[in-house]
Amino acid sequence: MTPQPFAGVLVPVLTPFTPQGEPDAARYVAFCRWLLEQGAGGLAIFGTTSEANSMSPAERMHLLDRLIEAGIPAQKLMPGTGACALTDAAMLARHAVEHGCGGVLMLPPFYYKGVSDDGIFAFLSAVIDRVSSPALRMFLYHIPPVAVVGYSLDLVGRLIKAYPTTVVGLKDSSGDWSNTAALLDRYPGFAVFPGSEVFLLDGLRKGAKGCITATGNINVPGIKKLYDNWRGPKADALQAEITLARKTMQAYPMIPALKRVVAHFHNDPDWVAVRPPLVPLDAAQSQALIADLERIGFTLGERARAAAE
Amino acid sequence: MTPQPFAGVLVPVLTPFTPQGEPDAARYVAFCRWLLEQGAGGLAIFGTTSEANSMSPAERMHLLDRLIEAGIPAQKLMPGTGACALTDAAMLARHAVEHGCGGVLMLPPFYYKGVSDDGIFAFLSAVIDRVSSPALRMFLYHIPPVAVVGYSLDLVGRLIKAYPTTVVGLKDSSGDWSNTAALLDRYPGFAVFPGSEVFLLDGLRKGAKGCITATGNINVPGIKKLYDNWRGPKADALQAEITLARKTMQAYPMIPALKRVVAHFHNDPDWVAVRPPLVPLDAAQSQALIADLERIGFTLGERARAAAE
Repeated sequence: MTPQPFAGVLVPVLTPFTPQGEPDAARYVAFCRWLLEQGAGGLAIFGTTSEANSMSPAERMHLLDRLIEAGIPAQKLMPGTGACALTDAAMLARHAVEHGCGGVLMLPPFYYKGVSDDGIFAFLSAVIDRVSSPALRMFLYHIPPVAVVGYSLDLVGRLIKAYPTTVVGLKDSSGDWSNTAALLDRYPGFAVFPGSEVFLLDGLRKGAKGCITATGNINVPGIKKLYDNWRGPKADALQAEITLARKTMQAYPMIPALKRVVAHFHNDPDWVAVRPPLVPLDAAQSQALIADLERIGFTLGERARAAAE
Repeated sequence: MTPQPFAGVLVPVLTPFTPQGEPDAARYVAFCRWLLEQGAGGLAIFGTTSEANSMSPAERMHLLDRLIEAGIPAQKLMPGTGACALTDAAMLARHAVEHGCGGVLMLPPFYYKGVSDDGIFAFLSAVIDRVSSPALRMFLYHIPPVAVVGYSLDLVGRLIKAYPTTVVGLKDSSGDWSNTAALLDRYPGFAVFPGSEVFLLDGLRKGAKGCITATGNINVPGIKKLYDNWRGPKADALQAEITLARKTMQAYPMIPALKRVVAHFHNDPDWVAVRPPLVPLDAAQSQALIADLERIGFTLGERARAAAE
C-alpha cells in the first residue's frame, strides 16, 4: 500500500465567517494553528462541518492559500475537493496538490441521485486524469446521510485496484459501523478513518488509522488521549468519556452547535456565524448546550482559555 | 402580480459535450435555435436535464455568453442559477440579469439535508441582496426527487410576500400533483409551471402558465399542440398522446435517453455524450428505446430531419 501521512485525530475544521458573511481568513489561520497545537494529526479542511459546499471554489482556494502563506504545514492538510462538477473537483484537487497537501478528501458528485458505480468511477477517473500528478493522495469521503450518494464497498475496491497509488483511504461518515468494519476487513492497509470518535476504539482495534471527526473542533485532547492509549487498560473508559461528549453535542444541530461552543470557550462571539442555509442556535438552545456541557464536566474551557491567553 | 415573460412549453435544454467532455457551444447554439423554431415558449437552460450542476459556474456562464452572442433572445432564457454556495448562486444570477435574461430558475441549496425554511429563506435573501437588481425575476425550482431539499408551500408564500416583484414563479418537479394544485390555489397569479407535461392539462385548467419539461427537448410540437388547444374538444386526447410519449421515455434513464433520441433523429451521433456521473445508454437500451418510440409512432423524426436539412 502507498504510504499516506495521516493518523490520529483529524479535524474537519469549522470555517469562521465575518459578520458580513465572508470567510474570515485571519480567524481561520489562528484556529487551524490552535488545533495543531492541541495535537490534531491533520486538518481535513473543507468538509461538511466546514460548510465547504457553502463556499465557492474560489473562496476555498483562497483560504487554503492563506493557510499555506501562514506556515501551516501542507502535509498536515487534507482539503475537501469534492464538487458536483468534475471540472470544479479537478481544479480544487490540482490546487491542493500544487500546494503539497498531504491528501484530498473527495465527495462523490452529489446532485444526481441513484447514479451507478460506473458513473462515480468515471467521475473520479476524470478528476484523477485531469490532476495527472503522482503526488495526488485521494481519500474517499463517504457520507450518505448528507450527500445521499456514496461509495459502495465494491466501488471502493475497484478504485483501489485502478489507482493503487492515488486512492489510499476513506473517511466513513455513514454512521454504520458494519460498513467501516467491512472496509477494514476487505481492504487491509487502506487508510480508513471513521467519521466519528464514537467508533474510534472499535476502529483502531480493527486497523483504522484514527478518526476524522466534527467534534475534534472542540475536543482534540480528549479524543487523542484515547488514540494514544487505545491498547491500555483505560481504553474503554476513555471511549465512554468522548462518546458522552459526542452524544451531548448530537442533541443539537452539529455545525452551529460547534460554532457556539468555540465562541463560548474561546471568548469570541463572532464565531457563531454560519452561512445559509444553516442557521445559528437561538439563545435558548445556546444556553442549554453550554449547560449540558458543564453538566458532563467538559474541559475544553481551560485549555482554550490557556491557548488564547 | 409582477409580469413575467414566460408561457407555453419551456425546455430545460440538454447540454451537448464534445467527445473530450467539454461543453460544445456550437452544437448548443444550434439546438437552442431549433427548439425556439419548434415553438418553445422559453429555454430553461442549465436545469437538471441540462447537467448544469455537472458544469462549473464558469462553464455555464460561457455557454450563456455564446447564446447571447449568437442572437438567441435573452428574454426567452431562464437559466438555472442554483448552487450550494450563495456566492456562486449570486454570481450566476447577476450574470443572467446583466444579459437581460427573462428570468432565473433557482434551486435551493442542496448539500445539507433537513435544513429549515428559515435557512433557505436566508439563502435566497442573500442571493437577491447580492444581485440587487429590479430586473431580477426569480422562479423557484422545486425538485425534491433530485435535490432532496425543496420549497415548502409556506416558504413559497413567505418568499412571494417578501419579494413580490422578484419571486414571480415556480417550476414544480415534485411529481406530486397535489403540491402543484395547492400552489395554484394558494398563490393566484404566481407563475406555476409543472415540471412534466403529464400535468399540463390539469395545470392549465387551474391557471398554470405552461410546463417546463425534459421531453420538450424532443417533443415541443406535440406538447405545444395541447397548450394551444387546451380548451378545445381534443384536449384530453392530446394529453393522452403526450403522456404516452413521456411514459415511454421514462422507462429509461431520462437524460441519456433524451440525448440518444436527439442523436438518432438529428442524425448526429456525438450528441449521446453525457458527463459523469451520468452514463450513456448501452447499445441494447438504445435499440430498445428507438424501437419503443417507433412503436408509438413518435413523429419527431420528420420534423428533426426537415429542420436539419
